[in-house]
Amino acid sequence: MKKNKDPVYYGDYLGLDKLLSAQQPVSPQYGPEAHDETLFIIVHQAYELWFKQMIHELRSVLGIFREEHVADERLMTIVHRLKRMVTIQELLNQQINVMETMTAQDFLEFRDYLVPASGFQSIQFKEIEISLGVKRDKRIAFDQASFYNRINASDRAYLGSLEAQPDLFERVDAWLARMPFLQQDDFTFWEHYKNAIDQQLQHDEDIVRANSLLSDEEIAAELEELASTRENFSALFDSEKYQAMQDDGRVRLSQRAMQAALFIHLYSEEPVFNLPYQVLNALSDIDKNLTIWRYRHAMMVQRMLGSKIGTGGSSGHEYLKRTTEKNRIFADFMNLATYLLPKASLPPLPASVRASLRRGG
Amino acid sequence: MKKNKDPVYYGDYLGLDKLLSAQQPVSPQYGPEAHDETLFIIVHQAYELWFKQMIHELRSVLGIFREEHVADERLMTIVHRLKRMVTIQELLNQQINVMETMTAQDFLEFRDYLVPASGFQSIQFKEIEISLGVKRDKRIAFDQASFYNRINASDRAYLGSLEAQPDLFERVDAWLARMPFLQQDDFTFWEHYKNAIDQQLQHDEDIVRANSLLSDEEIAAELEELASTRENFSALFDSEKYQAMQDDGRVRLSQRAMQAALFIHLYSEEPVFNLPYQVLNALSDIDKNLTIWRYRHAMMVQRMLGSKIGTGGSSGHEYLKRTTEKNRIFADFMNLATYLLPKASLPPLPASVRASLRRGG
Amino acid sequence: MKKNKDPVYYGDYLGLDKLLSAQQPVSPQYGPEAHDETLFIIVHQAYELWFKQMIHELRSVLGIFREEHVADERLMTIVHRLKRMVTIQELLNQQINVMETMTAQDFLEFRDYLVPASGFQSIQFKEIEISLGVKRDKRIAFDQASFYNRINASDRAYLGSLEAQPDLFERVDAWLARMPFLQQDDFTFWEHYKNAIDQQLQHDEDIVRANSLLSDEEIAAELEELASTRENFSALFDSEKYQAMQDDGRVRLSQRAMQAALFIHLYSEEPVFNLPYQVLNALSDIDKNLTIWRYRHAMMVQRMLGSKIGTGGSSGHEYLKRTTEKNRIFADFMNLATYLLPKASLPPLPASVRASLRRGG
Amino acid sequence: MKKNKDPVYYGDYLGLDKLLSAQQPVSPQYGPEAHDETLFIIVHQAYELWFKQMIHELRSVLGIFREEHVADERLMTIVHRLKRMVTIQELLNQQINVMETMTAQDFLEFRDYLVPASGFQSIQFKEIEISLGVKRDKRIAFDQASFYNRINASDRAYLGSLEAQPDLFERVDAWLARMPFLQQDDFTFWEHYKNAIDQQLQHDEDIVRANSLLSDEEIAAELEELASTRENFSALFDSEKYQAMQDDGRVRLSQRAMQAALFIHLYSEEPVFNLPYQVLNALSDIDKNLTIWRYRHAMMVQRMLGSKIGTGGSSGHEYLKRTTEKNRIFADFMNLATYLLPKASLPPLPASVRASLRRGG
Repeated sequence: MKKNKDPVYYGDYLGLDKLLSAQQPVSPQYGPEAHDETLFIIVHQAYELWFKQMIHELRSVLGIFREEHVADERLMTIVHRLKRMVTIQELLNQQINVMETMTAQDFLEFRDYLVPASGFQSIQFKEIEISLGVKRDKRIAFDQASFYNRINASDRAYLGSLEAQPDLFERVDAWLARMPFLQQDDFTFWEHYKNAIDQQLQHDEDIVRANSLLSDEEIAAELEELASTRENFSALFDSEKYQAMQDDGRVRLSQRAMQAALFIHLYSEEPVFNLPYQVLNALSDIDKNLTIWRYRHAMMVQRMLGSKIGTGGSSGHEYLKRTTEKNRIFADFMNLATYLLPKASLPPLPASVRASLRRGG
Repeated sequence: MKKNKDPVYYGDYLGLDKLLSAQQPVSPQYGPEAHDETLFIIVHQAYELWFKQMIHELRSVLGIFREEHVADERLMTIVHRLKRMVTIQELLNQQINVMETMTAQDFLEFRDYLVPASGFQSIQFKEIEISLGVKRDKRIAFDQASFYNRINASDRAYLGSLEAQPDLFERVDAWLARMPFLQQDDFTFWEHYKNAIDQQLQHDEDIVRANSLLSDEEIAAELEELASTRENFSALFDSEKYQAMQDDGRVRLSQRAMQAALFIHLYSEEPVFNLPYQVLNALSDIDKNLTIWRYRHAMMVQRMLGSKIGTGGSSGHEYLKRTTEKNRIFADFMNLATYLLPKASLPPLPASVRASLRRGG
Repeated sequence: MKKNKDPVYYGDYLGLDKLLSAQQPVSPQYGPEAHDETLFIIVHQAYELWFKQMIHELRSVLGIFREEHVADERLMTIVHRLKRMVTIQELLNQQINVMETMTAQDFLEFRDYLVPASGFQSIQFKEIEISLGVKRDKRIAFDQASFYNRINASDRAYLGSLEAQPDLFERVDAWLARMPFLQQDDFTFWEHYKNAIDQQLQHDEDIVRANSLLSDEEIAAELEELASTRENFSALFDSEKYQAMQDDGRVRLSQRAMQAALFIHLYSEEPVFNLPYQVLNALSDIDKNLTIWRYRHAMMVQRMLGSKIGTGGSSGHEYLKRTTEKNRIFADFMNLATYLLPKASLPPLPASVRASLRRGG
Repeated sequence: MKKNKDPVYYGDYLGLDKLLSAQQPVSPQYGPEAHDETLFIIVHQAYELWFKQMIHELRSVLGIFREEHVADERLMTIVHRLKRMVTIQELLNQQINVMETMTAQDFLEFRDYLVPASGFQSIQFKEIEISLGVKRDKRIAFDQASFYNRINASDRAYLGSLEAQPDLFERVDAWLARMPFLQQDDFTFWEHYKNAIDQQLQHDEDIVRANSLLSDEEIAAELEELASTRENFSALFDSEKYQAMQDDGRVRLSQRAMQAALFIHLYSEEPVFNLPYQVLNALSDIDKNLTIWRYRHAMMVQRMLGSKIGTGGSSGHEYLKRTTEKNRIFADFMNLATYLLPKASLPPLPASVRASLRRGG
């Protein structure tokens, strides 16, 4: 390692002259400074610093996923960085507690001076959403109409170019879809698996019918749910049915990617699937933590504003609540549990698969 | 203090013979014991221990609120115990992380042996809900139909008797409604306040119209929201309109209680309102944490079961998500922010009020 | 509220041009950029933002404590802001988890380029320590020698001027010492209290002697501890003995302040003492959280560096561990539990005290 | 999967009749029940439930480590269960917050009735310590003398038999020591590595000497530290010197295990070392969390008791603080950072090693 060129000092290294001169409350222009305005500024600035870090990790993960073949060393790096993002998200969720130390009354002392600024204008937050895979056509109407109203042309262009690039969902879908074991003309395995699932669902049906604690209406509802599960399951292997599920938004992954994800979950205890399984888990955790953040943030906004307009001119919490569920990205992974089998029923992993993954998957 | 009668030993004192013999997995009846069944049992047992503690604190708080006049010493005790409940809830929410260390696959190894047991049968959890104020007629249909199907007659009777008693919501409503300052024939204050609010809402309307970043549709939506706020606000002082809001579930507090809660929030910085304000805050926190728990729990169930039936014969996560918002108890407090005024616009606290509270409120 | 002068935009309001251009890794000067250097920078920058917020709250609390008489409204503000500091500290302690996602190996990729920068050069952190009350003469030798070596003349002068001002410990000591009830010539109360304590300590001694599970050595050790407690207790009321305890660092509060703090704890359930008690509790929590942070930080440094030199040229973790206990500020409050009495033994609160506090304490 | 034999009901399944009848406060024998005694009981019972879970995971991990060759599938299970223990520990550390909602005053209302019960008598906690590897001869004197005074003969025998069995530290040491790559007569690698380390330490020395911010005393201290590091490092490869380090307690791992652990850290990014590296990390995390718990618990006891005797007849917090550092188990892993090299200086992994690990390590 080369000797460092010049001595490095803490304050310079961290750009503290910039960082610590960036807090410019506006309330003093109108009267005595509102004490809590500094908190409001610093909470948002801390969020923006962490957003920058999330983007730094995301970009590196997206870069690795671009590779035609993602070797195990690279998968280890992906898992490591996705897990770091999860750890940061846990901090960001707890950070809401700090904002909650500000009362609605104290916010009212300077809120009106901030119009029309709003968290909706955080370019980095939108970058994170876009890069993860919140699709524009899936955004709720409010966002589609307003998305570009609030930001300048340069930012608009930047986000537009981001949306044109493959996002993490797409990269992961492609990576799953090209998993070597799917190039097998080995339908015997899938037949074996389908039979095992059919038996499992029949077993579930027997359980429902035999459940003495359920009312007739409940039994009917359960059987309807099971029928729906059977349908969804058969769609896993029927291209037309699967396309229909994609068209009405019930699934998002491509069919091949869904089969691969299912396969990885079924055989998650096989060492060759250890790293892919950890990747899918980390993505589910990121999705979960982002959803929790949206929900907690919506509740905090509600307590801060009641039903009044947010500074950005929208009823903050209603908007945030509507986006909480609609902006899920990796929900398909969460639903895979529907299609698992007890280990005893699981067909043995085809030897050809184990070999192909050792060669390089 | 009297000298203790007999030496007390740790294991006896904590009833460890009972506590640590209460873990009886059922999987061994069917084959090798499922390793994760112990975790499943202990997580639920830990929840039940904490539910018992929550009930212990709730009962004592309910007892204090029964008093005709709740003196400051007693309010301090209430605040202390409500805050303890909030601290326990934070632990219970984090406890979900421990359950999440079990994979859906590992759960599948013993799930079917547990039928029809389900968290829906936790009597203590229902006791907490009922005692806080989750009203039976407000429960979703599923609960109303199934509530008594799954529990035995003795538990049914117990919960029925609980539902017949005043819950915490009702006690708090009554306590707020009898706050002395409302017995004032001092409508000058409310007139002054109404005018200030009208000005505030007009100001908000000006902000919306002047917001260059909003589209016409957005402006229209905002103005509609403001009109709705004006309506709700006027209902605060109009018995008929207020009753209508109660009838269609937009508010839950009685009109007098709502006015008192509003008053306390407006003057939260007055020392005489310090303790009442902390009570309302703690109740909001309890409601918030319970809501977060429901949401996180629903997500965990979804990941564990997919869309399949839970052990209790219902599609666990869908049920839980529907109850997340519908079972809010103290949501009215969160909406009070709609009716706040900046301090400069706030009418001075009537002297008669300060005096009446000193005498004893 | 005046209408705001100009529209305020999110990015401008938060100074994002400055904030997000302050991340300048140095590793690119030597080769490919070390991926984790950005994390290292952003973690420290986030800490510095929160340090700024802590200082903002600290300064306001110090300002209020300067007043000759701190009215209840002001005490409420103090408690609110101290509790906010506690909430921020909880976030800062959890933030260590984020740094811990960096491996020692990955740190090694750019560590040497940062020499001699070090967290020891954080001026804001030192400001927090000084303002809370970490006294220079109590700092360990390493700090005394090196304190001014690493920082420039301007920062040196600034911290020097801070040290010359009363810190929070001193302000709190003075506030406690001037509590009106101590101006009572009412020694009957203290006599009553001393007798009750003597009885309590005798009772504790009986318990020790009667404890069949203790060995003779243990009993001897316990009795020695009790004798020491008796000594410390009598020193509470004997100026010479108390001075001796201060001289050898066993207590830090002035005698009058210690008596007031004790009084507040004894009667913490009296409404007149509610706010003072919450102040002391918040200060203990701040001290506790800072101590936990030092400890966790030391462990993290050890894992990151082993026993090697930190970037600032000192064996980081050894230093940090030595400062963990030595830099306690409000430890006296934690030790008050030694002098409590069961409620039944507590002398009734003198009427004169209650009256004097109502008049204004 | 077989159909379950009988319907299983929630309350029966969880043994709630036992669990919820195990709370037997003693204060009612002496007067009105102390409200907080239930909290005290339930906090400790929750700890004991989680201790049981920790033991369940520990035993299974110990069982797997008994195997002569631990295949990757088994390592995955070990990592999964160790990480679960870490997640539980995080909950247990947060649980201290719940106990901290009890004031010293409220504890005093029933403390004396509990004599001589004490957490020192938790058999499960001692089992966890013993099973992890807290060695009896390393326990502080207080423990050695008192360990058997406070527990009955049956528990004494049980713990004695546990101490006679290999603990996790020993199992891990043996597993590391038999790693195949150490059976190489490939000293060329170690020579290459030693040279690289020598260069690294020389480089560190140059940095110290060139650090203009250090005083002469500091430079001397640093160079002394480096000399010590050189000594410790050479001991890694010199059996006599290493034995001396073991004899005076500076290291605990066997020499072969230490070399293996070092190797794994050096090449932690190689996929073949992914799982072993995760094992070592999880063990470090368990050690870290246990240490944090001891420290936080000591502070809580201090606040609760001051310097007075704990219920078990010892000055609780002093004892706990002394054990915090002395009872570290896997500290050797934390110190490995001392011996790392930047990737550019790292010798390439010998091909023979990669092959031997693929065959089965």
